[in-house]
Amino acid sequence: MSYKFLDEINSPTDLKRVNLIDLPVVCDELRRFIIESEAINPAHFGANLGVIELTVALHYVFDVPNDNLIWDVGHQAYGHKILTGRRDSFKTNRTYKGISGFPSPAESKYDSFGVGHSSTSISAALGMAVAAKMHGSNERTIAVIGDGALSGGEAFEALNNAAVRNPNLLIVLNDNKIAIDETPGSLREYLTDISTSKTYNKVKSDVWNFLGKVNKLGPDIRHFTQRIDNAVKSIVMRQSNVFESMNIRYFGPVDGHDVISLVKLFSDLKDINGPLLLHLITQKGKGFKPAEENPREWHAAPGKFEVETGKLIDAEENPMSAQKFQDVFGEALRKLANDNKNIVAISPAMVSGSGLTKMFEEYPDRCFDVGISEQHAVTFAAGLATKGMVPYCCIYSTFSQRAFDQIIHDVALQNLHVIMCLDRAGLVGKDGATHHGSFDISFLRCIPNLVISAPIDEYEFRNLLYTAQLEKNDFPFVIRYPRGKSFNPKSEIEFSEIEIGKGRCLRHGDTLAIVTIGTSGQIAIKVADRLHDNDNISVSIYNMVFVKPLDEDLLREACESHKYIVTIEDNALMGGFGSEVLEFVSDNDYDVKVKRFGIPDYFVMHGTQDELIRECGYDADSVYGWIKQRLFS
Amino acid sequence: MSYKFLDEINSPTDLKRVNLIDLPVVCDELRRFIIESEAINPAHFGANLGVIELTVALHYVFDVPNDNLIWDVGHQAYGHKILTGRRDSFKTNRTYKGISGFPSPAESKYDSFGVGHSSTSISAALGMAVAAKMHGSNERTIAVIGDGALSGGEAFEALNNAAVRNPNLLIVLNDNKIAIDETPGSLREYLTDISTSKTYNKVKSDVWNFLGKVNKLGPDIRHFTQRIDNAVKSIVMRQSNVFESMNIRYFGPVDGHDVISLVKLFSDLKDINGPLLLHLITQKGKGFKPAEENPREWHAAPGKFEVETGKLIDAEENPMSAQKFQDVFGEALRKLANDNKNIVAISPAMVSGSGLTKMFEEYPDRCFDVGISEQHAVTFAAGLATKGMVPYCCIYSTFSQRAFDQIIHDVALQNLHVIMCLDRAGLVGKDGATHHGSFDISFLRCIPNLVISAPIDEYEFRNLLYTAQLEKNDFPFVIRYPRGKSFNPKSEIEFSEIEIGKGRCLRHGDTLAIVTIGTSGQIAIKVADRLHDNDNISVSIYNMVFVKPLDEDLLREACESHKYIVTIEDNALMGGFGSEVLEFVSDNDYDVKVKRFGIPDYFVMHGTQDELIRECGYDADSVYGWIKQRLFS
Repeated sequence: MSYKFLDEINSPTDLKRVNLIDLPVVCDELRRFIIESEAINPAHFGANLGVIELTVALHYVFDVPNDNLIWDVGHQAYGHKILTGRRDSFKTNRTYKGISGFPSPAESKYDSFGVGHSSTSISAALGMAVAAKMHGSNERTIAVIGDGALSGGEAFEALNNAAVRNPNLLIVLNDNKIAIDETPGSLREYLTDISTSKTYNKVKSDVWNFLGKVNKLGPDIRHFTQRIDNAVKSIVMRQSNVFESMNIRYFGPVDGHDVISLVKLFSDLKDINGPLLLHLITQKGKGFKPAEENPREWHAAPGKFEVETGKLIDAEENPMSAQKFQDVFGEALRKLANDNKNIVAISPAMVSGSGLTKMFEEYPDRCFDVGISEQHAVTFAAGLATKGMVPYCCIYSTFSQRAFDQIIHDVALQNLHVIMCLDRAGLVGKDGATHHGSFDISFLRCIPNLVISAPIDEYEFRNLLYTAQLEKNDFPFVIRYPRGKSFNPKSEIEFSEIEIGKGRCLRHGDTLAIVTIGTSGQIAIKVADRLHDNDNISVSIYNMVFVKPLDEDLLREACESHKYIVTIEDNALMGGFGSEVLEFVSDNDYDVKVKRFGIPDYFVMHGTQDELIRECGYDADSVYGWIKQRLFS
Repeated sequence: MSYKFLDEINSPTDLKRVNLIDLPVVCDELRRFIIESEAINPAHFGANLGVIELTVALHYVFDVPNDNLIWDVGHQAYGHKILTGRRDSFKTNRTYKGISGFPSPAESKYDSFGVGHSSTSISAALGMAVAAKMHGSNERTIAVIGDGALSGGEAFEALNNAAVRNPNLLIVLNDNKIAIDETPGSLREYLTDISTSKTYNKVKSDVWNFLGKVNKLGPDIRHFTQRIDNAVKSIVMRQSNVFESMNIRYFGPVDGHDVISLVKLFSDLKDINGPLLLHLITQKGKGFKPAEENPREWHAAPGKFEVETGKLIDAEENPMSAQKFQDVFGEALRKLANDNKNIVAISPAMVSGSGLTKMFEEYPDRCFDVGISEQHAVTFAAGLATKGMVPYCCIYSTFSQRAFDQIIHDVALQNLHVIMCLDRAGLVGKDGATHHGSFDISFLRCIPNLVISAPIDEYEFRNLLYTAQLEKNDFPFVIRYPRGKSFNPKSEIEFSEIEIGKGRCLRHGDTLAIVTIGTSGQIAIKVADRLHDNDNISVSIYNMVFVKPLDEDLLREACESHKYIVTIEDNALMGGFGSEVLEFVSDNDYDVKVKRFGIPDYFVMHGTQDELIRECGYDADSVYGWIKQRLFS
């Protein structure tokens, strides 16, 4: 495919050479380029198509990187990447050693700030804008934030501070009414209100009503009501705007898909000092019909697809393929909710990603999408738990970092029966450094009162989900589980209870015990099989199931009957599960050598999960190789 | 002292027996009781005096614990505690084994939710109110939140969700214009605006202006403008209220010190369903002149005092007494800021507590009080750092839990030169379980790229503060330090650089090495002195200074020249500094026994720091005793 304009654009400078009237063609080309690229290399989709015109207009008017441009979350920054020298490398998007799916200053000087998690852009932009002011620089700083991301508390904290030093900050509110699922909450309603002029119209009718009554007092008045009405409306709209009440000048709402108007608008806004907010109305998936019609499914392209129709290629599921962990979760929870009426589900804007779509449909009154609000999600769950509800609070491991204090302060300290389901624990693959769930064992196991568990497979997962809701287990209960497929084609067997703090010896062998947590046990099984088959060495495997409380009896057995212990975990080695084993060995004075496998102490980038696990050296090959060489050669 | 009414009030039921007209006397008595108690046992002060009438009115009208009452932060809940059966035990407030300075369900059924950190009350209350609705219960849920706490992002997340299920939730906004220092931010201005009717008046004058112009078009119109004006104002006020725009019915502002009116108001509000917000104007320190006049100093009573005058008793500082760490910090930072113009300071509403008052006075343009907004504070710092500023982001250890994700995602991953100063690390004493900085080593050391340090004394502290800002050290730099006094009367000596990742051997001995981080080194010195003096045993002491990067050379020396290593830290043993030493010993296959001292795996309550350290068993006596018994007996 060739592109008349796009092929010549390798930087914003090149873009600026295009005539204004040709910009709609640039937008068409950019849109087509993204669709064609993603048809082969699927990635975040709908949000990128929604900001094409915005992206082109911003780079046409502003002078990035001298001006600063921060994309909140950043999965919508593909157009930005393509216009800033990464058109050719875009085919490597999210692949191992390729470019990142998120803006990253390490990747390009055009990426003013690294993003991935939501609601940080205004804070970061404010830092830059305030610094610019202190330096006496005239540079401009732009934060682009979606209506979903605006619901995150940090965004509000930043808005509350945005006007304090009157910095030159432009906040572009990219209002597409949807994060991944529909944005919930009152703020969302408010934005709809101001974009549809509901308040305008209400005020208008109120004023007319009143003036109608006045009318009977004098015949001349009706004549002037239209003018009064206009004046009142303009006063009301100025006074009633939430952003204006935060001392941020509000502009809009305007159509986010008219690139020429946007260029004119940005040219004007560029010359206005102080904090400004421009409210754009955009459509997620704009210009690609299947995505326009089904924005949730096309948040990310659901697979390789035909460019013209959106029809998925090779999309047929192998009926013998195992379910994703998230779907095992969703189905199990529905079953449990059917039997235990106190169960409720809470998701901070990750309903579909957490496998909760059906649960939300079936039990709408017992399900809460709280928007991108992890802190609130956890404390809200704690509040529900004080009243005997059994909340499953479903947060990706990486996003649970946002609720760390609430897990300590509102759940653990008060010893409340909240079940924290941490999806996407361990290395998540293509989303990369911002999204890996690499740290949760390290940062959670220091918290008193928590039960922390991780299943080796979907059967154990279901049983943990079952066990967690039992009335007698009325304490904080964490279950961490990985992104991606589970292991067996059929996961549904009868639920059975797991004793709290009890692990399982999966096989008994000599000399060496492999001690694991969660699905790392699958790696241990592969290693043990290979040692057995290739080398006639038999080793033990201990699947501990619980990070906390640790099964001390089982670990004692492992320490007393082996000379070596190998630990495997999909968590940071620093302070992780292996460290816990070391603590036990040291505290109990066992004379056993411990070798720990897990995620080393650097930020792991993106790639497939297998590629990354191999890089980190806790894949079966690496563990097998180490054991063979160090212990049996 | 005897109290006519208060002496008979041991529960809200007793309070309800008092006649309405006598409630002002009850308020006077409650106020006097708190003042007299605190004159002997100083504690949080101003906020408690500010909510006396509110507390009495709430308990008079509502039926706690059948209704749910949640105090945000909770340091203002003394009146509540005294009215709910804890009048006699109030003399033990914040003392070891006494009652907590914060509400705690473990202490009393009248404490509906445990608090301590800010901005959680609406989320928790919403959980309770939604649960009540699901149970078909008619109970009421009340969250009392200050204007300072309202600036925390979690409070906004909760407001955004408050209307979604239309629960019976009453939010009482206790607006006293001050957290500890004056509340900053636009929201604060907005609250002032609505309480002083600035918008009212502005709209009025706008409308009059316009109608004035209309006037010349017809003589009769002026006659009706007053009526039009009133209608417009009421429309504007309804539409322009931020809380109303979140679908929360707004009432107020009203005087928070008129107890009889409050009772009437709450009686009315009790019968209104759905989410409501009542805006109360209160005065911090109300009824005690020194506190009214100097609310910052009297946020907590500054010491024992004379009840009539507020004059401090025994308040003279020993001139030979050492400075607090926070003051060492503040003075050092001022000096550094004088030399390095890129230095800026950021505090989330803890300016005075962090020792930054003078810094803020001297360099107002380079200092940022961002309100209770730890998340924003850290990302804002990151934004500033991208532009070459050198931010010192000063957050108590316990509150840094709120910014955990931002430390990972915005600072560490982007490897930005942000200096995180974590005050109040370790056990903080009387503030108790919610406030101990027990976990930071565990939750921070898993994060790649971070340099994490802890000084043994104020000299090393100053040198770390100096070292952190050097241009060559342009990476994320954490310095953790404890609450309370440093060790030497004069802390100011010339700054000198500390090599990154280099610890110090404080003394060489035989057999045993004590390896420490931070001020735990002082305990090691005491232990070593005693072993030397009493037992003629000489041990080594290694002050590691850096948790990360670990001084591997030094630790190698410790491992190679000793049979035993004892670690001491004021952090959780789970995953803490001692675990890191274990990791090193294991990874390097050293044959040395390690015994770890630190904070055990339960939530430590309140008391003096010495009492709590003794309870945790890492005081000098305990360490000395253990060493003597286990190794040299």
